[in-house]
Amino acid sequence: MTANTPLLQQLIDALKALPGVGPKTAQRMAFQLLERNREGGRKLGTALLHAMEHIGQCQSCRTFSEQELCAICSDPSRSQSSLLCVVGSSADLQAIEQTGQFDGRYFVLMGQLSPLDGIGPAELGLDRLEQQLAKGDVEEVILATNPTMEGEATAYYIAELCHRQQISVSRLAQGVPVGGELEYLDGSTLSHAFSGRKRF
Amino acid sequence: MTANTPLLQQLIDALKALPGVGPKTAQRMAFQLLERNREGGRKLGTALLHAMEHIGQCQSCRTFSEQELCAICSDPSRSQSSLLCVVGSSADLQAIEQTGQFDGRYFVLMGQLSPLDGIGPAELGLDRLEQQLAKGDVEEVILATNPTMEGEATAYYIAELCHRQQISVSRLAQGVPVGGELEYLDGSTLSHAFSGRKRF
Repeated sequence: MTANTPLLQQLIDALKALPGVGPKTAQRMAFQLLERNREGGRKLGTALLHAMEHIGQCQSCRTFSEQELCAICSDPSRSQSSLLCVVGSSADLQAIEQTGQFDGRYFVLMGQLSPLDGIGPAELGLDRLEQQLAKGDVEEVILATNPTMEGEATAYYIAELCHRQQISVSRLAQGVPVGGELEYLDGSTLSHAFSGRKRF
Repeated sequence: MTANTPLLQQLIDALKALPGVGPKTAQRMAFQLLERNREGGRKLGTALLHAMEHIGQCQSCRTFSEQELCAICSDPSRSQSSLLCVVGSSADLQAIEQTGQFDGRYFVLMGQLSPLDGIGPAELGLDRLEQQLAKGDVEEVILATNPTMEGEATAYYIAELCHRQQISVSRLAQGVPVGGELEYLDGSTLSHAFSGRKRF
């Protein structure tokens, strides 16, 4: 017999929607909030409802935004940049922003090509990307999709779009990660690092 | 610069109230819900608000309950049992229920004695436990508090209460856990296992 009340069981089941949270963790989370942090639980509930309701996508770059345009796209110094970086997700955009290295604009695919899962060019908004490129103010597209099979396929597809419009395309360098040890590196990364070696 | 919108940042901050969730995990959870499971996010939000609002404590055993009495305390075959098991939390109660070994009633402390944190007998509802014991229908109290310093101190305190009312008290057996290896067992568990050895 489970001694959980219906509401508690509902909460535990709902918590399992979070990535990496199984039944045990969900139960621990529910008990922790109920025992020690009801205020935090209430805040989380409200924040979730607000976020799910009001966060949409930026009309220009497709990243998450409550406004029609996100903070980056509504910043003229960035939205008129001639550099456009294509990323797979808002989390990737975030990671690049945190390096502070890039001050151009983005286009967020919110996924990657995966025909078997029914994700084609339309789902990734590639028609909209094509329209943006057609305006002629982008000089270079930086492909920052994931270095996976799907990510590479997506990158090739977008590179084709750019070539057709004579826009130059680059791809993030592949090689040895900082702090990594050669001994434990997979062969294909190592061979990328070899073929992409630079004069010292 | 962070590219997160205010609502998104609020959601990420609120998710950090969950145990074991830091900023990175919170961000991943938020993105995952927004990208792939808004329905799940909405459900979780509603479940949290309902649970925080409506889940109280059982008037008899203090475990979480939406009703005045929890499912166990409102089951006559259990609430009139002469065995009372004292546990530290609802999660512990749950773990014992799942063994299917115990069909008596419980008393849930919702914590353990810890004078430095301001948790004394009153906070654990020990006055209420004493009243229950005074009714005279409990024949044995099983102490199932955690085998930690605080848990032991709590157990000793409750054992005193029981002795005063001439109720017999037992404590969960301590010893080698099933499937454990002696080689890696801590010394104090091993010495408990020795002193508590049984004829084979």
